[in-house]
Amino acid sequence: MKKKNIVSIFALLSILMMAACQKAKNEKKVTKENLTKMTPQTNNEKSHWPNGARLVISFSMQFETGGQPKGAESPFSGNPLPEGNPDMPAESWFRYGAKEGVYRMLDLWKKHGIYVTSHVVGEAAIKYPEVAKAIADGGHEIAAHGISWSDQWDMSYEEELQFIKKGIDTVAAITGQRGRGYNANWLRRGPHTLKVLQDLDFLYHIDDLSRDEPFITMVRGKKFVVVPYTLRNNDIVNIEGKHWSPDQFLAQLKAEFDQLYDEGAMQRRMMSVSLHDRIGGTPAVVNVIDQFIEYAREHEGVVFMRKDKIADMVKNDPDTPVDNSEIKFNQ
Amino acid sequence: MKKKNIVSIFALLSILMMAACQKAKNEKKVTKENLTKMTPQTNNEKSHWPNGARLVISFSMQFETGGQPKGAESPFSGNPLPEGNPDMPAESWFRYGAKEGVYRMLDLWKKHGIYVTSHVVGEAAIKYPEVAKAIADGGHEIAAHGISWSDQWDMSYEEELQFIKKGIDTVAAITGQRGRGYNANWLRRGPHTLKVLQDLDFLYHIDDLSRDEPFITMVRGKKFVVVPYTLRNNDIVNIEGKHWSPDQFLAQLKAEFDQLYDEGAMQRRMMSVSLHDRIGGTPAVVNVIDQFIEYAREHEGVVFMRKDKIADMVKNDPDTPVDNSEIKFNQ
Amino acid sequence: MKKKNIVSIFALLSILMMAACQKAKNEKKVTKENLTKMTPQTNNEKSHWPNGARLVISFSMQFETGGQPKGAESPFSGNPLPEGNPDMPAESWFRYGAKEGVYRMLDLWKKHGIYVTSHVVGEAAIKYPEVAKAIADGGHEIAAHGISWSDQWDMSYEEELQFIKKGIDTVAAITGQRGRGYNANWLRRGPHTLKVLQDLDFLYHIDDLSRDEPFITMVRGKKFVVVPYTLRNNDIVNIEGKHWSPDQFLAQLKAEFDQLYDEGAMQRRMMSVSLHDRIGGTPAVVNVIDQFIEYAREHEGVVFMRKDKIADMVKNDPDTPVDNSEIKFNQ
Amino acid sequence: MKKKNIVSIFALLSILMMAACQKAKNEKKVTKENLTKMTPQTNNEKSHWPNGARLVISFSMQFETGGQPKGAESPFSGNPLPEGNPDMPAESWFRYGAKEGVYRMLDLWKKHGIYVTSHVVGEAAIKYPEVAKAIADGGHEIAAHGISWSDQWDMSYEEELQFIKKGIDTVAAITGQRGRGYNANWLRRGPHTLKVLQDLDFLYHIDDLSRDEPFITMVRGKKFVVVPYTLRNNDIVNIEGKHWSPDQFLAQLKAEFDQLYDEGAMQRRMMSVSLHDRIGGTPAVVNVIDQFIEYAREHEGVVFMRKDKIADMVKNDPDTPVDNSEIKFNQ
Repeated sequence: MKKKNIVSIFALLSILMMAACQKAKNEKKVTKENLTKMTPQTNNEKSHWPNGARLVISFSMQFETGGQPKGAESPFSGNPLPEGNPDMPAESWFRYGAKEGVYRMLDLWKKHGIYVTSHVVGEAAIKYPEVAKAIADGGHEIAAHGISWSDQWDMSYEEELQFIKKGIDTVAAITGQRGRGYNANWLRRGPHTLKVLQDLDFLYHIDDLSRDEPFITMVRGKKFVVVPYTLRNNDIVNIEGKHWSPDQFLAQLKAEFDQLYDEGAMQRRMMSVSLHDRIGGTPAVVNVIDQFIEYAREHEGVVFMRKDKIADMVKNDPDTPVDNSEIKFNQ
Repeated sequence: MKKKNIVSIFALLSILMMAACQKAKNEKKVTKENLTKMTPQTNNEKSHWPNGARLVISFSMQFETGGQPKGAESPFSGNPLPEGNPDMPAESWFRYGAKEGVYRMLDLWKKHGIYVTSHVVGEAAIKYPEVAKAIADGGHEIAAHGISWSDQWDMSYEEELQFIKKGIDTVAAITGQRGRGYNANWLRRGPHTLKVLQDLDFLYHIDDLSRDEPFITMVRGKKFVVVPYTLRNNDIVNIEGKHWSPDQFLAQLKAEFDQLYDEGAMQRRMMSVSLHDRIGGTPAVVNVIDQFIEYAREHEGVVFMRKDKIADMVKNDPDTPVDNSEIKFNQ
Repeated sequence: MKKKNIVSIFALLSILMMAACQKAKNEKKVTKENLTKMTPQTNNEKSHWPNGARLVISFSMQFETGGQPKGAESPFSGNPLPEGNPDMPAESWFRYGAKEGVYRMLDLWKKHGIYVTSHVVGEAAIKYPEVAKAIADGGHEIAAHGISWSDQWDMSYEEELQFIKKGIDTVAAITGQRGRGYNANWLRRGPHTLKVLQDLDFLYHIDDLSRDEPFITMVRGKKFVVVPYTLRNNDIVNIEGKHWSPDQFLAQLKAEFDQLYDEGAMQRRMMSVSLHDRIGGTPAVVNVIDQFIEYAREHEGVVFMRKDKIADMVKNDPDTPVDNSEIKFNQ
Repeated sequence: MKKKNIVSIFALLSILMMAACQKAKNEKKVTKENLTKMTPQTNNEKSHWPNGARLVISFSMQFETGGQPKGAESPFSGNPLPEGNPDMPAESWFRYGAKEGVYRMLDLWKKHGIYVTSHVVGEAAIKYPEVAKAIADGGHEIAAHGISWSDQWDMSYEEELQFIKKGIDTVAAITGQRGRGYNANWLRRGPHTLKVLQDLDFLYHIDDLSRDEPFITMVRGKKFVVVPYTLRNNDIVNIEGKHWSPDQFLAQLKAEFDQLYDEGAMQRRMMSVSLHDRIGGTPAVVNVIDQFIEYAREHEGVVFMRKDKIADMVKNDPDTPVDNSEIKFNQ
């Protein structure tokens, strides 16, 4: 055997391996185009998604910058300035969300053809209408997040109704989209919230951490959809709060995905990921989210969806679980 | 040389490598079936397990959800609501344990044919009897964890006896299994606890961190088994408390395993891993536990056991160490 | 086939692989020499750097040791000693910056032919003039960081002017370089700071976190350059504050780099990295910074620059964005 | 070419690569036997170690368990029990150091033929004399760490002298070794400490963080050796305090080693690693320390030494730096 032969063997082996690899990828990848043609799962012991997906992934993109109160949580809030002193670096830290963060994430969604749910604080949209419009123009869901960045768990029914209504009216006037889903500040809704949302014709809320799939909860006898949120795949909780580096966040997302994808063969499963303008929109986080999306897309049956589309899909589906754990508040 | 040949060479190489790999695995893997046939260790300088295992691994699965008091430790407890306000997202975070967490772990144990020890809070079993029953029906040990999620280190002897007795009576009525092992809230037993446990016919407790193998401690002159716990391989301590990502938890488990497995050649060694319904039962944690179990099972002589079986095995074995460090409390 | 042949085959394969690897590196590597010959980006939709760089990276090296007040943040400051007691290990921890840290970083910059911006506290230069001189002698920028390590956000205009002026005068007398850029203690400038800096003929400041590229802000009608800082690639925030290990810091730098480098094809992008004498100058951190620089240099169009050079380059460039978000303070 | 040939080629290649690998390792490995035969470094611009080592690594093994006061730092100390209540799980956590931790580390040192410095609290030796003796019997240095686990920075000269003297007398009576090196509780010596140590004929202390090599400081005109400590390669600081997982600790050690080893070609460099009985002695930490030692030993010129041997070697060497930064306290 001659040297020349070995070289060509090496080259050929490389080519063959690359080809095999590509083939595997192609076989796994699901595009929006071919999804409707997917064969339904053969095992019907447990419920599946109406659209035949094996796993539904939904991103939240919070747009809050500009709406923050004095002393809002930031790298500077642990050492607050006395009343009346502007915290200039803290303000510039928040500004990053509107100047860089949202636009970077919009580019990412566009690159992958993904549509997300953006929870928009009313005052953020007032301060940066161009950002709110850019989100809506990108085909993303504009969901409600209150008129301002403040507690609502201690409001009266009427106060809370005005608080939420003012938020959706404001954001609708700016973006042309009226929110159908709700996210309370730090998830801290109160006992009236679901009734208020029902009265304002909301379709769903996300401030529940109890399940890995959407469910129905009865509010005054009528169906209300819960599209659960998570603190696990959440930039503000893990990157700011738990001090994770981006590689840890990626490891979390992949481990979570692998498990839910496995379970998705037998059961309806949803993965929720949450990103805030000034945190999730930083370069390193967007880089690992990009890697995560690439990874997820190599698997058959993974579908990325806005939360309103998910809620519409499951609201009247008989396989959607009903959970009335909070019934005492919702009568 | 033709392409066709290269392909078959490539295929052959792959097959050979896989075969070698599988062979290595087979040689290492120990099933319950062949364990009793294992040759005892040849080096007898130090004690070994009566069943010939090189390393015993025991999982704890705490079922506590539903029994938590207001303000119990959660991602929301750092910012508690004033008395009288329901913390709705916090409650939903706990609910995850009963709705998803325990069931996901039960699936994992079933997949690997492993039986674990479940420490069940009485009030959790009252609130979610179907969960408690599912654990018992899976063949797992139902161990005691108090009637409620509250301090017991400051109770009188009589109070503590009632507290523990009410817990086992309650859980036994629901699951049909009477607890023989005990775990105090945050491990914080008091000076009476072991005497109370002895009076209630308990076999063992776990609230001791001093050793990597079970031992005997004398309580009023009679043997009581300690099956030590650990804060090192513990989801609540590391994932919630230390803010580890799941890959860190896996790294810890593997490093711990590697060392104890090495030592197991010469000495009786046990590895304890602890998982709580709402933390260890999340997708990413179950995913890394699954990886860890796969990893451990590739090693010869690794046996997964319930803690009651461990205590039964060692209680009267002459090689079991006796440690009376707490003798002043146990007379 | 004989063993000898195999060896030469193996050697040949290695050589071929190394050669391919080297070729790829050569194609990517940009030296200062060939940078000016770089073809400008063909896509002109967005602005690029005047020097044709695809990504500009700028290191900050804070020299502060010796200027710290009693109880300054250190591994001992969480448990402060009562007034009047010298905290001897804490003082020795700070001393590391002057005895080891700065010199180790200077060696690193020299190894790679990189020039950085050093923010020098006046009192640190007084205490360790040989360190300040060594920085200046290495060709690095001596930027201002106040006369002492103390708050300036609450100073009057006149106090702040004296505070900053005393700092630059002091450091200029020692190093021969007069600072043209400013960094406030913990970035906490006040509402007067930019006007003070303008009056003292400063070119730029860094205490803004809102963008990933330099911009102009108008101060009393005249251009002032902002070369943004970041808390993301920052040793004191992440290694001391967030408790990252050095591998996490490297992961952050690489993920940040990858994203900004991608964006650099279309848009002017800058990456800022910050290192403090006693933290960034430790062996493990310098080791990962070394790895990061190697990694970055394998990419075409990456240029390492001092912040004064960046500010000079962009101040009058028409593509430099103007941002007057703080205009109310700067009139 | 036939299939059979390819197989043998593959096998041969594997064997050759392994052989080459082993050869490289052999060439790098330095044993105590051949160290004295090592050629001195040819570059003499900077100082080197008298024994020709390229890098000296010294482990500290704190034996403190049993000497802890009520409420000493532990996983339970954040939630202390009221006065008078025994914290039973906390006590068992400390006991681990004496029951498992020290013995595990002693096995590790023995496996690698390494001798370390053990800082022994007097009361720990009183409580567990068998542990203190086992350390001494293993050939390790018994260094002083006070009679009890308590502050000494606020003691008068006379109090501090009694405190330290009682410690060394006690430990000498138990182990037969009289401490020549000192480590204060949390490094917090006071202004009298070095004079006290000199009066008690100590050779060196470690409570200084300012350098990566030993140095001389003048105490009342006479030489006193400082063998610097570090908080960077320190289990209590990083694993308990910073919540690192063991893989992070290993990453830190390797990055630190790589940098100091590089520098060791030109300059005298020392790497200090610190392990506490109940933390460094846990299985996962010993596992990564074992990996680190293996890694370090693959490099030529790495020598592991007790701190008393280091101090003896450098005390009168003219290349040892003199640093009188604390001269005002030592006159």
